[in-house]
Amino acid sequence: MPSLATLDKDGLEAFKEGAERELADFKAQSLSLNMSRGKPSPDQLDLSLGLLDVLDSQSDPGLYLAHTTSDLRNYGMLGGIPQARALMAALMDVDPDHVMVLGNSSLNIMYDTVARELRAWSCAAPKFICPVPGYDRHFGVTEHLGIEMVNVEIGPDGPDMDVVEQLVQNDPDVKGIWCVPKYGNPSGITYSDDTVRRFARLRPAAPDFRIYWDNAYAVHDFSDTPDQLLSLEAECLKADNPDIYFIFASTSKISFASGGIAAIASSPANLAKIESDLSFHNIGPDKLNQLRHVLFFKDLAGIKAHMAKQAELIRPKFASVLATLESELGGLEAAEWSHPNGGYFICFKGLSGTAARTIALCAESGVTLTGAGAPFPYHKDPEDRVIRIAPTYPGLVELKTASEILCTAYKIAAAERLLAL
Amino acid sequence: MPSLATLDKDGLEAFKEGAERELADFKAQSLSLNMSRGKPSPDQLDLSLGLLDVLDSQSDPGLYLAHTTSDLRNYGMLGGIPQARALMAALMDVDPDHVMVLGNSSLNIMYDTVARELRAWSCAAPKFICPVPGYDRHFGVTEHLGIEMVNVEIGPDGPDMDVVEQLVQNDPDVKGIWCVPKYGNPSGITYSDDTVRRFARLRPAAPDFRIYWDNAYAVHDFSDTPDQLLSLEAECLKADNPDIYFIFASTSKISFASGGIAAIASSPANLAKIESDLSFHNIGPDKLNQLRHVLFFKDLAGIKAHMAKQAELIRPKFASVLATLESELGGLEAAEWSHPNGGYFICFKGLSGTAARTIALCAESGVTLTGAGAPFPYHKDPEDRVIRIAPTYPGLVELKTASEILCTAYKIAAAERLLAL
Repeated sequence: MPSLATLDKDGLEAFKEGAERELADFKAQSLSLNMSRGKPSPDQLDLSLGLLDVLDSQSDPGLYLAHTTSDLRNYGMLGGIPQARALMAALMDVDPDHVMVLGNSSLNIMYDTVARELRAWSCAAPKFICPVPGYDRHFGVTEHLGIEMVNVEIGPDGPDMDVVEQLVQNDPDVKGIWCVPKYGNPSGITYSDDTVRRFARLRPAAPDFRIYWDNAYAVHDFSDTPDQLLSLEAECLKADNPDIYFIFASTSKISFASGGIAAIASSPANLAKIESDLSFHNIGPDKLNQLRHVLFFKDLAGIKAHMAKQAELIRPKFASVLATLESELGGLEAAEWSHPNGGYFICFKGLSGTAARTIALCAESGVTLTGAGAPFPYHKDPEDRVIRIAPTYPGLVELKTASEILCTAYKIAAAERLLAL
Repeated sequence: MPSLATLDKDGLEAFKEGAERELADFKAQSLSLNMSRGKPSPDQLDLSLGLLDVLDSQSDPGLYLAHTTSDLRNYGMLGGIPQARALMAALMDVDPDHVMVLGNSSLNIMYDTVARELRAWSCAAPKFICPVPGYDRHFGVTEHLGIEMVNVEIGPDGPDMDVVEQLVQNDPDVKGIWCVPKYGNPSGITYSDDTVRRFARLRPAAPDFRIYWDNAYAVHDFSDTPDQLLSLEAECLKADNPDIYFIFASTSKISFASGGIAAIASSPANLAKIESDLSFHNIGPDKLNQLRHVLFFKDLAGIKAHMAKQAELIRPKFASVLATLESELGGLEAAEWSHPNGGYFICFKGLSGTAARTIALCAESGVTLTGAGAPFPYHKDPEDRVIRIAPTYPGLVELKTASEILCTAYKIAAAERLLAL
């Protein structure tokens, strides 16, 4: 396929018309396909069905009575059961004494954390740094709570740390930064060691500035060369910056998406504040579900073995989408996309001014994609070029057709854009 | 036993010294007893072990896949599964379309509800009416969120509605009222039909005033003559006041205290606001645990049959405490206490100025009681006379000794008080 840049007006017209004919053929099939959902497929969930077997009425009551001082069926243990704290600490690469395991949703923990911090801030116009493209629900939390969001570009090593440092170290209204440090949603980027160390060494103008480190894809590798992420906690301790971080994780994309367990890690001083606040709105998490997870996974090795099975299901899906992108758009020199080693997304970047049009053309042709602008604060992609592709949920057949439609739609949008220049 | 009022100074001194000798004997036993915990006993929890059996890896996948449009193991269904909504609606005496079933904690729902409402209030100094004595954690939520609390006395029919109406209908800063309408914590009182109707007919000065109706003990009867509570929702609809209520309930004291399900009921207009807010901090509750509850209890009749078994365990505990109170303090004419038909508490009212002293004497003698003042806003019992007794958790032997110590301690406190007058 020729580089689009080499085509003259007539060539572009012909290219566009060819793509339009292709799309019309797809449209005629009245399809209903979906590549918008960053959620596990049913066969991934099936791998966790054993969770339902580890605890029943015939189980040794010692499981819920004896090995802690409390009856796990009853109230109490606001920060979760010790074994679940240890399991999540291993996953999060932190000290088990620095972890609280709470309900089923890390998003909920994040929301409550920002809401709680916000009540303590004194400034009138607090700001959060939002590395982009990023996770729409992060930006939703800060927007909902009235916190101004400032974009910072993500590059191959993570957010542009020159800009982050400049903002954090000079502006006392900057109170936080959202991070998905491994297999970023949707960038697929894992922060480099240098990036993690620069985070750990930040000297914020605001003493209550915090890094909101959502390690959502800590063990979600599907490549033979998985990315490695430094422990933010370890680096913060080395940098004598023990209170600067909140680390979040959950098993939502490990066990059951809505029936998992979620955790927060931070310094003892921060955890004490969280626990004191939490005591006003909770009398303890669902500890039986925590126990189920401990019994089912046992330890980090158990989680990794489980995730290796999920990788077998996910890998061909990413490979399929990437193969279609390469075969359909590879020669055009008019788009780029990520080749992640894990996580849930492929990040597609087209020419400026093409994302919304591509997504709309897909919608007309029966393919749902994540809304244009979703990976940006205020739903606003400044260049209108990023599309988040979520390959995990659909089956392989659906995925192949949906990817072809996406490529075809993009060809039209790109040609239109070039013709309009 | 003589009425304390008939004793002269010497008589009171002798009475006090007798009680002091008794208490010294108890103290010598180095006991460690607890009547402070409003939580189910292990044998109550054992009755719910079947919950752990209703769903396992061999269960018909149709249970979690087929009878709804969504995979219950995955994200989604922010308001819970339809069957759980129906179950909780029956428990809460409301329309199933008016219910959302969320996480494991009604306290958490209440906190989030007040916090969300508070963000929308425009007044600078919002107030909540707090019927007293009441639930300490309710008052904790409003205190924590900086809402001023105004005490209103609870009588035999519920809160003093003359005062409630006067406050609600004249003061636009009054934004809410906390209610435990059945077997109140700790009063044991169930609101009369007239009280419920007066609530339903309130015409608040603040259009965003809401009744926070925590029906925590809806099915927690243990008497042959259980109290009956009118449906607040039905009465509000009759009174053309459809948006004035939030009703809360959970299965925390039905199934497992920390592994239950919790719900909120309100008008469609209010629920729409809740759902829109909730979408920023959650991607769906633990629906498998909701399914477990549906499979285990089936319907309201199933819940009631289950609660009848719990009543068998709870009834003798209340009877034991009440018998001790009667035999030890019955003739003194110096204290009164509730004789509830259900719920979790006996409400003890001594002479003014005796509660803190009684509780302190109990603590010295190895009996933990709920802190003095806990059932009041700001932990302040204006007359220092209310003691919350929680009989459900301890065993019968522990309970008998603890009750005797409480009575002995109270005798000392009462005599001291009368001697000081």
